[in-house]
Amino acid sequence: MTLTTRTIAAPVVPTSGALRPLGIDEVQITGGFWHDRQQVNGEATLAHIEHWLEKEGWLANFDRVAAGSTDTEGRRGREFSDSEIYKYLEAVAWEIGRVGDSVRSAELETRFRAVVDRVAAAQDADGYLNTRFGHAGQQPRWSELEWGHELYCLGHLFQAAVARERTAPGADDGLLGIARRAADLIVDAFGADGIQSFCGHPEVEVGLAELGRVTGDRSYLELSALFVERRGHQTLKDIEFGRAYFQDDIPVRDATVLRGHAVRANYLAAGAVDIAVENSDAGLVDALKKQWQRTVDRRTYVTGGQGSHHQDEAFGEDWELPSDRAYSETCAGIASIMFSWRLLLEGNDARYADLIERTLFNVVATSPSAAGTAFFYANTLHQRTPGEAGSPDEISPRALSSVRAPWFEVSCCPPNVARTFASLAAYVATVDGSGLQLHQFAPATINTVLGDGRRVAVEVETDYPRSGRVVVRVVEAPADEMSLSLRVPSWAAGATLLVGGSSREVAPGYATETRVFSAGDVIELNLPMRARFTRPDSRIDAIRGSVAVERGPEVFALESSGMEGLGSNEEEFSRIEIDDRVQPAETGRVGEADAGARLTVSLRVVPESTEGWPYAPELRAAEDASEDADEDAATFTAELLPYHSWGNRGTSTMRIWLPTVGA
Amino acid sequence: MTLTTRTIAAPVVPTSGALRPLGIDEVQITGGFWHDRQQVNGEATLAHIEHWLEKEGWLANFDRVAAGSTDTEGRRGREFSDSEIYKYLEAVAWEIGRVGDSVRSAELETRFRAVVDRVAAAQDADGYLNTRFGHAGQQPRWSELEWGHELYCLGHLFQAAVARERTAPGADDGLLGIARRAADLIVDAFGADGIQSFCGHPEVEVGLAELGRVTGDRSYLELSALFVERRGHQTLKDIEFGRAYFQDDIPVRDATVLRGHAVRANYLAAGAVDIAVENSDAGLVDALKKQWQRTVDRRTYVTGGQGSHHQDEAFGEDWELPSDRAYSETCAGIASIMFSWRLLLEGNDARYADLIERTLFNVVATSPSAAGTAFFYANTLHQRTPGEAGSPDEISPRALSSVRAPWFEVSCCPPNVARTFASLAAYVATVDGSGLQLHQFAPATINTVLGDGRRVAVEVETDYPRSGRVVVRVVEAPADEMSLSLRVPSWAAGATLLVGGSSREVAPGYATETRVFSAGDVIELNLPMRARFTRPDSRIDAIRGSVAVERGPEVFALESSGMEGLGSNEEEFSRIEIDDRVQPAETGRVGEADAGARLTVSLRVVPESTEGWPYAPELRAAEDASEDADEDAATFTAELLPYHSWGNRGTSTMRIWLPTVGA
Repeated sequence: MTLTTRTIAAPVVPTSGALRPLGIDEVQITGGFWHDRQQVNGEATLAHIEHWLEKEGWLANFDRVAAGSTDTEGRRGREFSDSEIYKYLEAVAWEIGRVGDSVRSAELETRFRAVVDRVAAAQDADGYLNTRFGHAGQQPRWSELEWGHELYCLGHLFQAAVARERTAPGADDGLLGIARRAADLIVDAFGADGIQSFCGHPEVEVGLAELGRVTGDRSYLELSALFVERRGHQTLKDIEFGRAYFQDDIPVRDATVLRGHAVRANYLAAGAVDIAVENSDAGLVDALKKQWQRTVDRRTYVTGGQGSHHQDEAFGEDWELPSDRAYSETCAGIASIMFSWRLLLEGNDARYADLIERTLFNVVATSPSAAGTAFFYANTLHQRTPGEAGSPDEISPRALSSVRAPWFEVSCCPPNVARTFASLAAYVATVDGSGLQLHQFAPATINTVLGDGRRVAVEVETDYPRSGRVVVRVVEAPADEMSLSLRVPSWAAGATLLVGGSSREVAPGYATETRVFSAGDVIELNLPMRARFTRPDSRIDAIRGSVAVERGPEVFALESSGMEGLGSNEEEFSRIEIDDRVQPAETGRVGEADAGARLTVSLRVVPESTEGWPYAPELRAAEDASEDADEDAATFTAELLPYHSWGNRGTSTMRIWLPTVGA
Repeated sequence: MTLTTRTIAAPVVPTSGALRPLGIDEVQITGGFWHDRQQVNGEATLAHIEHWLEKEGWLANFDRVAAGSTDTEGRRGREFSDSEIYKYLEAVAWEIGRVGDSVRSAELETRFRAVVDRVAAAQDADGYLNTRFGHAGQQPRWSELEWGHELYCLGHLFQAAVARERTAPGADDGLLGIARRAADLIVDAFGADGIQSFCGHPEVEVGLAELGRVTGDRSYLELSALFVERRGHQTLKDIEFGRAYFQDDIPVRDATVLRGHAVRANYLAAGAVDIAVENSDAGLVDALKKQWQRTVDRRTYVTGGQGSHHQDEAFGEDWELPSDRAYSETCAGIASIMFSWRLLLEGNDARYADLIERTLFNVVATSPSAAGTAFFYANTLHQRTPGEAGSPDEISPRALSSVRAPWFEVSCCPPNVARTFASLAAYVATVDGSGLQLHQFAPATINTVLGDGRRVAVEVETDYPRSGRVVVRVVEAPADEMSLSLRVPSWAAGATLLVGGSSREVAPGYATETRVFSAGDVIELNLPMRARFTRPDSRIDAIRGSVAVERGPEVFALESSGMEGLGSNEEEFSRIEIDDRVQPAETGRVGEADAGARLTVSLRVVPESTEGWPYAPELRAAEDASEDADEDAATFTAELLPYHSWGNRGTSTMRIWLPTVGA
């Protein structure tokens, strides 16, 4: 098979599959919710990240290797800090591609090349590249595969080089050459006759797959396949958290659900899809789809967040999803999107796009502050006490849940968010032989060719998620029949599609209009955006008797800051109940444009219960009073805000799941 | 003030307080639930522990120091492994005291002295004693107070020496001398003019306090007070978990609740009570009582277990008590008993004895296997999947919750259980100037003198907790009036006291009979042992809509192993609901005598719900079917067993909190 995907400016470009991804030169997000975030990302976050990479000395680690001064004690950062530089480079590459020719692009280009030069100088003659291993005074190469992260770092290097080559083909900065020399080295070192092991943290699998796709070098794909197949046979040393932590407990094709470290599990699954697709391995694809489904059905928060354990940043058992201390690492959300996106390209099933949307709005968008210079590492669903306010100049030693921090000792999340936002246009739409599919809703221009070579161009107009109206205007269409497909999210029962003056109800999945289109034709999707109560499966014990409030793709939250009077203090906040007989009312926007919708709900604060032992023969507190709610507890209204915007008004308590009156 | 408490054979002997503790020479447990455990502890657990201390090389660490071979890499175990040897010595000392003159006692004596000799040989000339620090090739003394555990280890040494001196006064084994030399050294090193810091893990505070009490040397108490007062001022370095982890966030007397690492928090609080009592510091006592109360009201599981976080073995916020992954470390339960017991002695309030009983039956008794050779480190309240069966010969790298392990890399729990069981008689009863108080119910002989010197002897007959009948028979009584007080647990509303043929209802607290007693007089307490449903405070979100079943002091659990047919597989087990309109029925004993009561409850398995995204507008699974329960789900009965005996029938799923039908 020939690899012919080098020129599509997208992070994932399989050589086969149901759908072809579009490059960020084919799709531009032109306004709205995601464009705002792309702008903040490009204008604030990227510089913020580079500042911290310098400040913490993680960039200087490369200079030390170049200078041969590795035998001192001076290296800074954790063993995987190189990867943050590579994710930063990947983000900048996408950003340069996104903004196109401009002053800002030129400035980014200068910064990009300067960093690449420092990376290049640290590469050994044989291609080895790592600032923590393999040099004088350091541990030998590949001597600590469980925790060393050498291959993990290279995976991110490869993704950066791929992003660069796809957005600036043939650029003379040298990054692709660096990546290829490193990749050739590990093909030798870990190939069929090499070290029969793999990296404790999956990532090189996706990196190698895409590097193979962009260069046409199959040896990279073959090594990626070896890494996927080797895992699961108890090759790595056992560790405190068990081998499931790095998915070395069960072979990928035998597993039934994601488990262990949630980022690792999803990165691995994403790489396995790449390999399965390239090798036409239907059995492996099927196994991965089943794992995806059970993970979504039983191990995913309502936000799309994954991973309930702090200790090992890991998935819990099925139904083990307490809101308390929900970990829901930002990077796990991004990794889940990587996995889902690959399955979407392979199989064209709206459920993958549904989860991507849910995770984008409620995990990825939640992480950065409005200014784009502080981040949630973990994304809890229930904050019981306001955290300590952090300092914008201080690194956070821990993944505080209540306060966004500018940087972390483990700082994977900020550059991961940055590369995701910079490349986000690539996740909006796809094409196949007969038409165009719109998966995510944002104001956009799309200008591409279908799988059979016919040109098509459309404009998307929408202020989604403010409203559910999505207008697709045809700018250029082939002379003959084609299809336009718009995703109808699973929550959007009752959605309608308006074409040529006639409206029809469309079911969740894809609403497809197939006809001869002309320039100026309009398709209008209307999604019902009425706020809704959501109730959990009874097997999720920790949220029994509670509801969440959702509107469109956004999960809403109750936050104490901004509440006044009843319910606003921590003590009262713990005794709030919602009257779910009263439908949430939309109260319009408050404050800045970006703050999103506000929903007014009917609450009460349960009268203070008796203190003392909290386990009694009779119900206490809330339940005590439930039959006399009107007498004992005043009902009041309060506003919920989109979860992704919580924590922007100072430290606060917060909860997504609200106990219902008398539950 | 004179310290005059050296001769009471009990772990805690304050010089003042409302109640005087009784030594294990004054109280013997003669049969029943706790005697069985004491026997297993003495006959199996102690030898098991010594075996592992040798096998893992933790005892040999002392030999290495004695031989001056510390500059090699050979030391085994974690930095606190010395403490396990000291806890073992403490347990053996109590056990020798418990069994009295006998062949077994002589054998224990030999083993005890052999270990003491090895410890003695490792002590430096100036009294310093630690196998991990302070010698050639090791880090210097006191160079890592956050994590080094040097003072922590000495605290356990002091408790061991105290146990020995109180059970074998003046013994020539040398242990007390070792302890005093080490204590004198740290009085110099950390005294008022010494290092202005303290140990990351509290424990030396209680050790020093008791060593002061047993030797009459006030400098030990004064150093203990310094350690208590120094903590809370951010002296130790900040760590990933924050300074609350080792209680260096808030001074002890300013804190309002226990927080951070649950063992550390309780050990510190126990030491602070000791200091407060010795210094007549009513303000400190009051602060500690308030901390105890809020911790019990808001941060304690129904089992008495404390600490909900795995990551930092720490308390959660108020009401953060998910059954999922409840950590509830065995040692935290023991530490909580240490704290409660000191408050009981100080203030004579039944609530402290109530929590001790709850924690003994449902945390401490849960840890060891029936054979006494495997232990739960953590005590989860909800086991969703059966764990892997462990090996009896294999150390556990992790605190598995579903399987008891023979030993751990951090193996604090087994010797902590052992010393608690061996000294348990000391927690049964107390005296004051006017009478005797019975706090825990077990067949026992008590032979002591009241605070005013009058002799009293009683026998306690009971098969508690099988029945609630507790008979106290007077064997010897003073000629004039005295009081006999029996605790009435808080759950025992409707209890009656039968004296001289007349019965009266007695309220929770203490039922006291004051009169002139004669030999042969009998008081009979009857506690209502009907099984009861217990419901949680609504602020504990994670168990809303569920009930627990309790009977007497025992919390019951549903375990899948032993269930047959409906509900016994993991998938069905996750869909079980209880019909709480049907009172649990006692079905008598099954199997071995010690297995405890069985309670039959009415359950149903909710019909399998639709798979797919588990958050929907309508209730799913359980709730879907609740109105048609009779049609959709067959009701069946199953037996609950005491939580402390779960996990003895093979790997299993288990839950304490059971969702109620239609909740």
